[in-house]
Amino acid sequence: MISKNKIKYIRSLEMKKYRKADCVFVAEGKKLVGDLIGSFDLTYVAATAAWLSDNALLLSSAVFQGVEVDEVSEEELRRISFQETPQQVLAIFRQRQSDADINEVAANDLCLVLDDVQNPGNMGTIVRIADWFGIRHIFCSDASADIYNPKTVQATMGGMARVEVHYANLPQLLDSLDSSIPVYGTFLDGDDIHGQQLSSHGVIIMGNEGRGVSAPVSAHVSHRLFIPNYPPGSSTSESLNVAIATAIVCNEFRRPR
Amino acid sequence: MISKNKIKYIRSLEMKKYRKADCVFVAEGKKLVGDLIGSFDLTYVAATAAWLSDNALLLSSAVFQGVEVDEVSEEELRRISFQETPQQVLAIFRQRQSDADINEVAANDLCLVLDDVQNPGNMGTIVRIADWFGIRHIFCSDASADIYNPKTVQATMGGMARVEVHYANLPQLLDSLDSSIPVYGTFLDGDDIHGQQLSSHGVIIMGNEGRGVSAPVSAHVSHRLFIPNYPPGSSTSESLNVAIATAIVCNEFRRPR
Repeated sequence: MISKNKIKYIRSLEMKKYRKADCVFVAEGKKLVGDLIGSFDLTYVAATAAWLSDNALLLSSAVFQGVEVDEVSEEELRRISFQETPQQVLAIFRQRQSDADINEVAANDLCLVLDDVQNPGNMGTIVRIADWFGIRHIFCSDASADIYNPKTVQATMGGMARVEVHYANLPQLLDSLDSSIPVYGTFLDGDDIHGQQLSSHGVIIMGNEGRGVSAPVSAHVSHRLFIPNYPPGSSTSESLNVAIATAIVCNEFRRPR
Repeated sequence: MISKNKIKYIRSLEMKKYRKADCVFVAEGKKLVGDLIGSFDLTYVAATAAWLSDNALLLSSAVFQGVEVDEVSEEELRRISFQETPQQVLAIFRQRQSDADINEVAANDLCLVLDDVQNPGNMGTIVRIADWFGIRHIFCSDASADIYNPKTVQATMGGMARVEVHYANLPQLLDSLDSSIPVYGTFLDGDDIHGQQLSSHGVIIMGNEGRGVSAPVSAHVSHRLFIPNYPPGSSTSESLNVAIATAIVCNEFRRPR
């Protein structure tokens, strides 16, 4: 059973301002909720009897101390869920405070910088890709999609447990970057990525879905890259989705040298 | 002005059985409709006054001979559209009859085989990726997402004008394949794709979102590939989305040798 007020509260968390006010976010599904427990503090769980009985041991553990738990019917779960097909459990977690020094990160490993990636699905998919390729930090412009948007959270497939996402004014952030750190970006007039010596540390900038990397951000790029289409120079196909391009670029950077 | 019956008919085309009955499909937006004209026969257009006036020359051309055209208000367009943000024009095109011999295709170039890729967005994104990498034919299992699903059509970003998508019983299709043709597939226990000599022709099989390549299909694979995560062998991240994996694999196959 779940109260009307609770339903209203959970539904309100679709909006950033309500998530931000309480520093929380929603995650759904057995797999994802399981992945995030341990990385984020749990505050609330609504789950079916099946999930509660499958997780009896977890429920009696320290993780669930002070956590409010509602047993809900499938029908109730549908009413609070943001998913087309709700899966047994919806949880509210506390947002993580993020602080990372881009100079420290980029001096030792690769990191991603997202310049206004606005689609929540793309943002989540990029976090999942970063997770696969062992990239632990993503710095986003303030206008980028919110990592805590329910669509983004689901699209990370648990990757957000291992990848930290930070928001910043990108021109200022990149101004603060040590000049010895390589800054890569993808551009339609960049150099064929296949022919480049790619560094094992530094910054990789990916641009907005429509307009690519903005001028104030691209001014900081030291290496302009291009993912060639095939046959080389053919002009029919126009572009790759930003998450797709991110995956190809990360794979190139992580190839054995 | 658009009739109630027409609205009902257009909305019905969200379902495969109605698209199939009339051998048609819906595409929306200035860019996409423009891309598909010339590759598919146009049968109907609903557009705002702005689109009609911008395309006066096209409207008087042979392409529009016998094509029914409705001028619609923004409000009417919203009622027929499958998109969150309708863009000036919705068109109905005739489906293309596809027939391609996989032996002919795969003896000379790369082609993709999709084993139950079920998400319409993934299907459309894979067509867009194939377009970028110059792959002209995709063979899909009958249970794969329909290329003519409105979500798929939009996700191809025009790529379906240049990429032919065929449906078949995959085990039968692969049985008919000449044994000299290399058949690649991606598996979690495959060989690191970075270390392989990849052929410039052959078949690349991508599996279902949840279960990967099915047993009857994987029995035909001659080269088992794996996209390594980073650091190699780390076990936290679990998988890549099938469209993401397809992009990385296509990029590897199209690298200059």
